[in-house]
Order: sequence, then structure tokens, then C-alpha cells
Amino acid sequence: MTTPETAAAPSERTRIRRIPTNAAYDTATLHAIVDAAYLCHVAFADDRGAHCIPTACWREDSHLYIHGSNGSRMLKRLTDSECCVTITHLDGLVLARSAFNHSMNYRSAMIYGRFEVVSDEAQRHHALENFMEHLAPGRQAEIRAGSDKEYAATTILRISLEEAACKIRSGGPDDDEEDMQQPAWAGVLPLALKPLAPVVDESCLIPSPAYVQQWQQD
Amino acid sequence: MTTPETAAAPSERTRIRRIPTNAAYDTATLHAIVDAAYLCHVAFADDRGAHCIPTACWREDSHLYIHGSNGSRMLKRLTDSECCVTITHLDGLVLARSAFNHSMNYRSAMIYGRFEVVSDEAQRHHALENFMEHLAPGRQAEIRAGSDKEYAATTILRISLEEAACKIRSGGPDDDEEDMQQPAWAGVLPLALKPLAPVVDESCLIPSPAYVQQWQQD
Repeated sequence: MTTPETAAAPSERTRIRRIPTNAAYDTATLHAIVDAAYLCHVAFADDRGAHCIPTACWREDSHLYIHGSNGSRMLKRLTDSECCVTITHLDGLVLARSAFNHSMNYRSAMIYGRFEVVSDEAQRHHALENFMEHLAPGRQAEIRAGSDKEYAATTILRISLEEAACKIRSGGPDDDEEDMQQPAWAGVLPLALKPLAPVVDESCLIPSPAYVQQWQQD
Repeated sequence: MTTPETAAAPSERTRIRRIPTNAAYDTATLHAIVDAAYLCHVAFADDRGAHCIPTACWREDSHLYIHGSNGSRMLKRLTDSECCVTITHLDGLVLARSAFNHSMNYRSAMIYGRFEVVSDEAQRHHALENFMEHLAPGRQAEIRAGSDKEYAATTILRISLEEAACKIRSGGPDDDEEDMQQPAWAGVLPLALKPLAPVVDESCLIPSPAYVQQWQQD
């Protein structure tokens, strides 16, 4: 486990050059950004150029997991080529006194490497149970578990979090001294991905479990 | 302008194969997804593999715009290679009665093509003014406008929205008939990127303008 103070970029392609003071390479920062996400964007290239595909993700120890249908073209390609997985949380618009110093607050992680197929059947079950726990803690015990046929139709991939870089901007505007008298409002307009009121399926008569009751209270 | 009913995929690489009933290729759907976004993820490839970079974006007519420092490696690469720009709005977690039928509600757009540099000085000014208007309507008149030096340090790129595909999932779970008696809560846990209370810069004495007052009321 590395700390923000001591961690360095794990590779040349993860070394952040633009505003390197916003970079972080420590495990705790990376895990926090990944764990706060429901989805990531996966970039890969083939003979038709680059592709950028959004997909659900979750973390287990030092790997990021994704899954999908065996028929997915993307999943087939990801184990063949170097990929980049990016997670971005937008935290706000930063309004400075000059146009040039406007910015955004965000937490982002970029993970480089190659995906591998999770093929061990016990690991596959464990991975999908972890995914459900990430989405709705405690729900696994209520639902109809996956059948052998459903498991057989599902591909699970994982990528190591070893080669990764985070970039974070937070706080208010950084104005130039000579702009401080400009009569413009300055500050942050914050944004957050927030839970809204649960929408129950019209044929569901089951009382709301804890993870539904707590959805808007987090 | 095309409609959802008549529009077809503009190219082979934008034809959606997985759950094609969720695909949309019409202009109105595409513009709505782009206009609701503050940022996109841009995928491109170079000799070190694929990259997926989050960056601010905005739309003007039938182009998506991005900008950055002249020193940005990404911006230099984007005009050399085929890119994919993806915007994803996560709208909720869809909880079905079986593990297999869980899903997410989302609106996404993938745009393929090559970026071009916006070099005409009047167009460049116009583009950055549009960006500010997208972030905070009416703010342009308050702030200190960009200097010649700041404009000279900024690269503006745009990509045509012509080759694009949208994919949208909405609504409740699609359970198998045989799972309907499973005693599991079923429905949607909605999510939305929401504005939180504005945070004024401590040295700002300017009263909140309309776009700040309205920030949490949209």
C-alpha cells in the first residue's frame, strides 16, 4: 500500500504531465474512486479505430471487474489488446473571474493493461455476488440466483489495478491576482450523482428492504 | 433531421448489435444526450495502445467541441487518428427478481470520426463563448474575457456528429415470467447528476447572479 506522498507513476503511460500536482498514484485514492463508481468507460482499438464503451464495473481486491454476454464483440477484443479503463466523477463547475481560469472539479482514474477472463467457476460466482453486493448490499439473499445456463452465457473479465493513475481537482477557483477585482461571481457550482426516490415495480408487493429504504439517505 | 422511427445506423461501426431495440440514430436524441453533458470520454490509440480521456465538451449545431492547452498530448493526437467520443448518463439501477435480469438505465451516445482544429479566430471566440453559455448562461458578460495570449495558448477541436449512435434503456425490470413469484423487491433505484448548493469563493462580494440562484432549482 502506497501513500499519496510517496507514490510515483507506475509506468510511463500513466505519468501525468498536465498539472502533475493534481495526480495521485496511491492505492487508497484509486480504490476510493473505483468503489464510488457504477460504471467505467473502456477504450480499445481494432482495425476500425478506437472504441469507447461504457459498462458496469466493480472492484475486488486489486482488480476491476466487468461482465457481459458471451456474444459481446467488446469482451472478445479486450483480452487481445492493450486497454484503458477510465472512471470519472464530476464534482462541480469551477467559476473563476476570468474565462481562462474556469475549471471543473473531478476525481478520475485511468487504468491501463489487458483484461483476463475469469474462468474458474467458484471465482465467477464469487465475482457476480460481489457485483450484486456493490449495487445493493444484502440483496443477494432475496433474488433468484443465476442458473447454470445463465452463468454459461456470461463472460466475466478483470484487469489489474496495478498500472493506474488518478487525477483530482477540488476546491475553489484559482484566479490571477490582477483579476480579483473583476465584478464576477466566483465559486463552485457543485454536482453529484445522487439517488432519487425508488420506483417500485407495479407488480411488486414485497416491502422495501433496507437497501431500498436507505437509498436516498446515503 | 431524422426521427427515431426512420433513422438507421450511419455506418457499420455505429450499428448497435446488442439489444438493437435500445438503439437510436436520430438527431434529436443525439443532441439531447450531448446537451445534457458537461463532459465526454475520448478514446484514441497510439503506439502505446488505447487511451480514454475525460474532457469537457459542448455542442454547436452538428459538431461536438472540446478544448485544452496547446501542450496537451491528447489534442495533438486526436486530429491524426480515428476517435470515439462517448457520453453516458447513468439514470438508475434496475433491480429484477433474478440476478441475470438486473440492468442499468442510461442514455449514451458514441460519436466516431476525426477531430479537426478550429483555427478561424472569430469561430474560436464564438466557440469558447458558447462553452461558457453552456456552463453558466449569461455569465460571459461578467467575466474578464480571454486575452490574446490566453487564446493563443488554447486549442479548440471539433468532431462532426454525423457518425453517431445512441443507446438508451429506461423503465423497470424485465423479469422472466417464471421469476415473478420470487420474493424479491423489484424496481428501479434512480440516479441523477444533481446540482448541490453553490459554494461562493470567500473573497467574492458579488451578489449571486441568476445562474447561481437557479443552480439548485433546475
